[in-house]
Amino acid sequence: MKVAILGYGTVGQGVYEILSDKQKESSTLFSISHILIRSNKPKTLSIMCDDIDVILTDKVVDIVIEVMGGIEPAYTYIMRALKAKKHVVTANKAVVAKYLHEFLETAKANNVNFMFEASTAGGVPWIQAIQKVKRVDHVYSIEGIFNGTTNYILDQMLKYGLPFETALKQAQDLGYAESDPTADIDGIDICNKLKISIALAFGILPPKEIATFGIRTIRKCDIEYFKSIGKIVKLMAFAHVKDTTGSCGVEPMLFPSQSIEANVPDNYNLACIYGDTVGELKFYGQGAGKLPTANAVVQDMLDILEDKPQPFKLDKSNIFNDMKDNKTYVIRSSLDNETFMQIFPHVKQRVIYKKQIYRYITNLNTMQAHKKMTMLRTIDPNAFLASIKEDIV
Amino acid sequence: MKVAILGYGTVGQGVYEILSDKQKESSTLFSISHILIRSNKPKTLSIMCDDIDVILTDKVVDIVIEVMGGIEPAYTYIMRALKAKKHVVTANKAVVAKYLHEFLETAKANNVNFMFEASTAGGVPWIQAIQKVKRVDHVYSIEGIFNGTTNYILDQMLKYGLPFETALKQAQDLGYAESDPTADIDGIDICNKLKISIALAFGILPPKEIATFGIRTIRKCDIEYFKSIGKIVKLMAFAHVKDTTGSCGVEPMLFPSQSIEANVPDNYNLACIYGDTVGELKFYGQGAGKLPTANAVVQDMLDILEDKPQPFKLDKSNIFNDMKDNKTYVIRSSLDNETFMQIFPHVKQRVIYKKQIYRYITNLNTMQAHKKMTMLRTIDPNAFLASIKEDIV
Repeated sequence: MKVAILGYGTVGQGVYEILSDKQKESSTLFSISHILIRSNKPKTLSIMCDDIDVILTDKVVDIVIEVMGGIEPAYTYIMRALKAKKHVVTANKAVVAKYLHEFLETAKANNVNFMFEASTAGGVPWIQAIQKVKRVDHVYSIEGIFNGTTNYILDQMLKYGLPFETALKQAQDLGYAESDPTADIDGIDICNKLKISIALAFGILPPKEIATFGIRTIRKCDIEYFKSIGKIVKLMAFAHVKDTTGSCGVEPMLFPSQSIEANVPDNYNLACIYGDTVGELKFYGQGAGKLPTANAVVQDMLDILEDKPQPFKLDKSNIFNDMKDNKTYVIRSSLDNETFMQIFPHVKQRVIYKKQIYRYITNLNTMQAHKKMTMLRTIDPNAFLASIKEDIV
Repeated sequence: MKVAILGYGTVGQGVYEILSDKQKESSTLFSISHILIRSNKPKTLSIMCDDIDVILTDKVVDIVIEVMGGIEPAYTYIMRALKAKKHVVTANKAVVAKYLHEFLETAKANNVNFMFEASTAGGVPWIQAIQKVKRVDHVYSIEGIFNGTTNYILDQMLKYGLPFETALKQAQDLGYAESDPTADIDGIDICNKLKISIALAFGILPPKEIATFGIRTIRKCDIEYFKSIGKIVKLMAFAHVKDTTGSCGVEPMLFPSQSIEANVPDNYNLACIYGDTVGELKFYGQGAGKLPTANAVVQDMLDILEDKPQPFKLDKSNIFNDMKDNKTYVIRSSLDNETFMQIFPHVKQRVIYKKQIYRYITNLNTMQAHKKMTMLRTIDPNAFLASIKEDIV
């Protein structure tokens, strides 16, 4: 099959590298016709061009690989490629989270495939895992560590007692975090992956808004306090359903130190799914990086070549609004009791650890907790929140 | 498609249950024509019979599900079914480990599929994971916890300080272990699963002999000693290759207490694979049990229905004989130094913990270590051995 790659950043180069590796069978199955690069970049390979029209009107191109990232022009190029009856494989979580339904419908109407394994959890075969579990089971929960950068930061803080800023700097030096780390540390990147996962696992359009709290305000003392109570904090995405209600969000979560989640190291991802017959399944691996992400792209290409894509169905309406999930949260805030309790009236327990105040609040829904926390942070911007992981019933 | 189930034990009942569940789409895709039961069992369903000929000569049967276990008559029935041009799905690790190549060849010659996802790691989609990784990558290592019963025993000993016998009794009471637990605690069950995994991951015939040491001789003091040095012991199966050599085995292995492997709880499985571009992938879930195993059977059936089976290729000769894997082992033995060192001459370190002697031996190959240990146990039958997990280079 003839392939065009849109974008030649880290992932684009990884795809090129795998497809050019003569040791691999995939190099004999696909040939790269075009690589789209920016007009201001040097054309170091003869197949490089900066004109999308040349690529999309080239009849020999069977598959378009979109690895540019961002919403535009990715959205426009994907739509045009699908309408030109070319299969599309993308690693771009932002555009998939926003336009998944539209892409699937357009692909279907044009009798081609739209594939996005690489968009969520990189090299971990997570999109396929959801599809496969759903083929037999009712899925009642998904959750996981979907961002390697923040996991690296939390892991470094835990293992070496680093302050947040130092761990973030390290992540930036290693190329895990961008110079503007907002998308990672505020949970926006995870939120996009959660939207995609929810859409597949529950067959609904990705919810537009998801309660999201990142790790921007975590401090060394938080890690130490959690450790003192036998817990380790991880930035988790989750979505649970019960009957016709659901609850979802992105937030720091405390796990027992002797648990799988607590022990996910470095920049690894862990994606978990719960089905009614298969039970609990967890998938661990590299959620980002040149070759693992490119591997997921090539796996999608092979599925297209072998005519194996699983059909996607998004037909149910959003149920993630009103589940009573009654969780326990712990909040670090320097506010006095009176001010704090104007926002969170029912403090169950109050602990002072190294001059910091940690308050426990029980019976909160995710949405409630996040809304109140947003209020609290208007007066105490450095406050931190984590929920306490309880077993799923 | 019309289905015949051979055997109505735990897994057979699970398959029946899933296929009869009207909430599941699979109930509309498959109908059960026959269930083969022993002639001395009551026929509680009208589709039950005790005559294999009736089933194998019934032209309407498309898929035969073999869930009887054991070598015979499973081998004969599978071969007859394949030759009668029926697809075969099995959960029987013993027969697959012994006859995989023959089954695959016979299936190919008759243009039908032979599928065995349920034979290894139960509900964990491990067979498919190997196939998929191999599609793009060179696999250089597989390893994992492939036996829930022994993991449960080790986990109970660790968490509640139980003696081996008490933990084993609990596993038997819960139905995890057979009344004769030999296959589990001596690593025979794991060895079968490793043979199957090796065949797929490296494209070779399953090796006939694999160095295997189980947990029959583990004692409470071992768990405590390992804990005192920050380690947790797990019964692991592994196979690594380097260039044209390889090393494989089943043995207790010590992991840092803060690692994924160390924290696999209860009767769960963890299956790990390492590829050159995807990196490290780990899959966690229920490796046994009625519904998870039945789920894997139904997944295979759906792959057949959707015409998605990945082709299996076993074409390379055995390479698992001579790799220099230079590991460190720790051995608990009551032998005096002189006798011990006649077998293991190069003791690097000797530790007394609660009156037990632990000796460390470095630079051993798996095969060497196991051979020497077999000799040692002829004079000290209660001795215990574990290797120390080091990172794969």
